[in-house]
Amino acid sequence: MAGGVAPSLRVLVDMDGVLSDFEGGLLRDFVASYPGEPHVEPARRKGFSAQDQYRRLREDLGDKIASVYESPGFFLSLQPIPGAIEAMHEMIQMPNTEVFICTSPIRKYDYCVSEKYIWVAQHLGPKFVERLILTRDKTVVSADLLIDDKDTIKGVEPNPSWEHILFSCCHNKHLKLQPPRRRLESWTDDWKAILESKRSK
Amino acid sequence: MAGGVAPSLRVLVDMDGVLSDFEGGLLRDFVASYPGEPHVEPARRKGFSAQDQYRRLREDLGDKIASVYESPGFFLSLQPIPGAIEAMHEMIQMPNTEVFICTSPIRKYDYCVSEKYIWVAQHLGPKFVERLILTRDKTVVSADLLIDDKDTIKGVEPNPSWEHILFSCCHNKHLKLQPPRRRLESWTDDWKAILESKRSK
Repeated sequence: MAGGVAPSLRVLVDMDGVLSDFEGGLLRDFVASYPGEPHVEPARRKGFSAQDQYRRLREDLGDKIASVYESPGFFLSLQPIPGAIEAMHEMIQMPNTEVFICTSPIRKYDYCVSEKYIWVAQHLGPKFVERLILTRDKTVVSADLLIDDKDTIKGVEPNPSWEHILFSCCHNKHLKLQPPRRRLESWTDDWKAILESKRSK
Repeated sequence: MAGGVAPSLRVLVDMDGVLSDFEGGLLRDFVASYPGEPHVEPARRKGFSAQDQYRRLREDLGDKIASVYESPGFFLSLQPIPGAIEAMHEMIQMPNTEVFICTSPIRKYDYCVSEKYIWVAQHLGPKFVERLILTRDKTVVSADLLIDDKDTIKGVEPNPSWEHILFSCCHNKHLKLQPPRRRLESWTDDWKAILESKRSK
């Protein structure tokens, strides 16, 4: 942009499954809480909702798996996804780049909401607490990119401004994306190239 | 729009000072906690930050007023602004209208964040919990209108999509707005006319 200021690239990064290992924590706590019950191995997870898959396994297991992520301490206990913390610190330092964390709390918000704030403060620090957005509808947040492990992201805005980059996770790895949809396989994958591809020429 | 579907009007409604009586609760709890200290009457409040004004009154009063809104139970105890609950229930029922609550938690998020969720659930119900957006930067949320009592709303987006309607409050009533800026004086003021003025012709 000759003579102008290059506009910043805005990136929204989801939390569960992208920054924090929701699926890993869920399996760990489910097995600990219900040692006699069958569980779904990560290789066999399919579909965003663990509750739906456990319910199909056996009706009552749907409520049991939900009780795990609705428990106090669950969201706070999640481990960071490998490379996520380093990538976020690098991204926030990049020139002409604005990064936000954009996360949807579960419906039973009691522990989830405050634990998400504490998690971000503990793992990423106060600069990222300033950049934390909680919303059940991500389509109304405007950005160039949304990095999210949920395969389909709907809301009131039929044409969100962001391109959704599917972050690979056990529950979505089987999906064949229709072009031009793109994936980020992990934080060791080339996330910087994806950011660069969105900058104004 | 002949033959087309009218796009929905999207309205963001701020919480503190617009739905919940932050200033009223703050004065009530400050006088109760510090009965011997001077306080600022609503008629003399000026400027969005109560902390700044109390600090100017006497240096140590800044920390004292902040301790009030940082206390457990403060945000949950706030009374609804007159007419706010009724207006929100009416707005959510309006055809081609999508309303969200868009609120910035205080930096000391410990009690504020979860109490905002509980407040919305108690006073407005679960439909509005689904429409609650927590963000320190409102410029990245896209909408037609933002009804907010803060006089100046800045963030990373230099050209937010919304028109900011200043909701009148003790701390902003002295301000003379530069045209075309508009106010909503209260929830008995004609908020419906403001919504209608933004619909696509």
